Amino acid sequence: MNILRGAAIVGQSGGPTSVINASAYGVIRTALNSPHITNVYGAANGIRGVLDDVLYDMGQEDAYELSLLLHTPSSALGSCRYKLKPSEVDDTDYRRILEIFQKYDVRYFFYNGGNDSMDTCNKISKYLQKAGYDCRVIGVPKTVDNDLWGTDHCPGFASAAKYIVTSLMELYLDARVYDTPMICIVEIMGRHAGWLTAAASVASLAGCGPDLVYLPEVPFDVTKFLNDVERVYKATGKVLVAVSEGVADAGGKLIAEYGAEDAPVDSFGHKQLGGLAATLGNMVRDRLGTVKLRGIELSLLQRCAAHCASETDVQESFLAGKTAVESAVSGITDKMVAFARRYDENGQYVCDMVLLDLANVANTEKKVPREWINAEGNGLLSNFADYLLPLIQGEPQLARENGLPRFARLKKIRAKA
Amino acid sequence: MNILRGAAIVGQSGGPTSVINASAYGVIRTALNSPHITNVYGAANGIRGVLDDVLYDMGQEDAYELSLLLHTPSSALGSCRYKLKPSEVDDTDYRRILEIFQKYDVRYFFYNGGNDSMDTCNKISKYLQKAGYDCRVIGVPKTVDNDLWGTDHCPGFASAAKYIVTSLMELYLDARVYDTPMICIVEIMGRHAGWLTAAASVASLAGCGPDLVYLPEVPFDVTKFLNDVERVYKATGKVLVAVSEGVADAGGKLIAEYGAEDAPVDSFGHKQLGGLAATLGNMVRDRLGTVKLRGIELSLLQRCAAHCASETDVQESFLAGKTAVESAVSGITDKMVAFARRYDENGQYVCDMVLLDLANVANTEKKVPREWINAEGNGLLSNFADYLLPLIQGEPQLARENGLPRFARLKKIRAKA
Repeated sequence: MNILRGAAIVGQSGGPTSVINASAYGVIRTALNSPHITNVYGAANGIRGVLDDVLYDMGQEDAYELSLLLHTPSSALGSCRYKLKPSEVDDTDYRRILEIFQKYDVRYFFYNGGNDSMDTCNKISKYLQKAGYDCRVIGVPKTVDNDLWGTDHCPGFASAAKYIVTSLMELYLDARVYDTPMICIVEIMGRHAGWLTAAASVASLAGCGPDLVYLPEVPFDVTKFLNDVERVYKATGKVLVAVSEGVADAGGKLIAEYGAEDAPVDSFGHKQLGGLAATLGNMVRDRLGTVKLRGIELSLLQRCAAHCASETDVQESFLAGKTAVESAVSGITDKMVAFARRYDENGQYVCDMVLLDLANVANTEKKVPREWINAEGNGLLSNFADYLLPLIQGEPQLARENGLPRFARLKKIRAKA
Repeated sequence: MNILRGAAIVGQSGGPTSVINASAYGVIRTALNSPHITNVYGAANGIRGVLDDVLYDMGQEDAYELSLLLHTPSSALGSCRYKLKPSEVDDTDYRRILEIFQKYDVRYFFYNGGNDSMDTCNKISKYLQKAGYDCRVIGVPKTVDNDLWGTDHCPGFASAAKYIVTSLMELYLDARVYDTPMICIVEIMGRHAGWLTAAASVASLAGCGPDLVYLPEVPFDVTKFLNDVERVYKATGKVLVAVSEGVADAGGKLIAEYGAEDAPVDSFGHKQLGGLAATLGNMVRDRLGTVKLRGIELSLLQRCAAHCASETDVQESFLAGKTAVESAVSGITDKMVAFARRYDENGQYVCDMVLLDLANVANTEKKVPREWINAEGNGLLSNFADYLLPLIQGEPQLARENGLPRFARLKKIRAKA
């Protein structure tokens, strides 16, 4: 084993999930226990905390509070959406990062995020190598969108999916309580990949699923959509639709922007979407006339519902963080922890931790395979349920106080070099 | 004991809740076990099922499936919003009800609903008495709105409240994940009474509460609201607002209708509201300029989230149904089951079942006491948390299949007279 002694930094980046803190806890707990890691620092708001020299000393946190991270949603250290320029274009940030790493003798860098964050990891690692600074960099994936390349699934996805399946089942029962017609359109996260919206379809296994499911993987045809809704409406009087925020027509135009003002854009150039359910609802009213219609946007609720997380996801997310540290300590760098699925001799689902080259995963998007979507493009086939079900097993037992979830409260004591 | 032999009808009416089926199960199970009740019928879609002669024979249901009703959200028998005219004006419906009751020898009528349903109960009972038809009528309350007069709280309220507190805590953590400003406005059910919105305030006990809470009990002043938001925004950069759908200005005009097209009206003359969060968001943008803003409507999710119900509410709701049957069998009629709160010698919360005159509860609304709301009208005082906390204790253990909640599936076999 190639021993490297020094401090570690863990950072969280991108949109939060129900279990990103479980991964952070996997990193922090394992790093604190490692004889080779001298200090464990949490970067405030991801890479911004490194640039701004705002690091928290994780060694001064109470062990019980840290353990509560396992079931605490959102990013306890704070997150960011800061995108590093290529170092060839502008190396200011990279020089600053190196300076801070040298100041704190940081030899391990663990970064927990999605596509953009793996790109950040990769760029930092390459720069440090070129600068001759010995530092091991491992990415820990997270994204409710489940769109990272090379991993069977992403930490955070299954918990959001479980919340969505559960909520769709409940909405299904609620929406058909009266003997009068009702159309309910549920808007679900997913700009380019429809994994979360596909999850809604699994409610059908319990007989409480949406009638129609639309993913961004299939070009959205407004006329076909209205025909679909009208057909179900005329047959049963009740229509439950699950639709991805990112559905777009064959020309690539977002349906959410039909007739809407141009949505603002975030610093990564992503459109800040919203209001798709209302847009579709208006189209349905134009077609069907007066009809009881509900548009429901699951919004932030779906990505932070720790109370309805998948315990499988929680445990795998923790393990991803732990594996990142163990791999780095053993000499590995420039990798992202990924999940490989297999079934054991009893047919039981097993999730193996594997390592992928950062350079390969960064900025590559994984979509729902077309062959898992029905020919009409308005529902999922059973392959998808086979894929999802093992991931959403197990209910978390949240610590409680006053009957409310007891989430972690970190002291966040500023680190001294 | 004044013994009356005959069949029983149970009906569900008004908006569903997470636990209305727990009350139905309390009625059905107890009635099936009673030696005096010959048959137990479930009315399809409340009183409409009686008028249309669509009754289900509960005796033919599987006992295990019936037991799953305890944790199955929405109204398993179907609901309605049908309002009976006063019998003096038009007695057609009443004559039909009497006809059906005679056809099936119905001597017990249990109706599970809110204000309007207690009014229905009361009218039917009075008519049957006048007609000389011996039938015992007991109302079982339910409403997420918690606005029924004379009861400490209503079945269904605490579960919705628990979902709201939990979701607000999670949203609080999510909404402050970035080091950039963010305003999040959460719209919560409650047309005239702010009980559910008030529940959001209890998240503050865990340090994750909304900054500002607005109930319909206090006239909503747009300028004051914008000043409040601006103050918090300038101090912290993060604002979490919880607001009732029904907030109205001093002139009684709904804020949701400011600049909105006239909302449609349901058969009770209630406005079908929605879009308040968006309306307020636009006002905030006008005041503060470009700012990251999320409007989140908890919509139907809050009233059907059985996965996040209060087990205390589940058990009390069951007991309300059970008490209704036991009371009727013992000779009581024309009452609504209500909850009286006391604290035992150890200071433990106890919920006693009491009976109120139907005539008194019907159509009387109970609001959040003004003295539980702060002077500024933008937050709750500790009296409210003292009131709410005992009601939201305990987590339900849902039956599961494929890792998904296993909700009751009734056969709904049509009854024969």
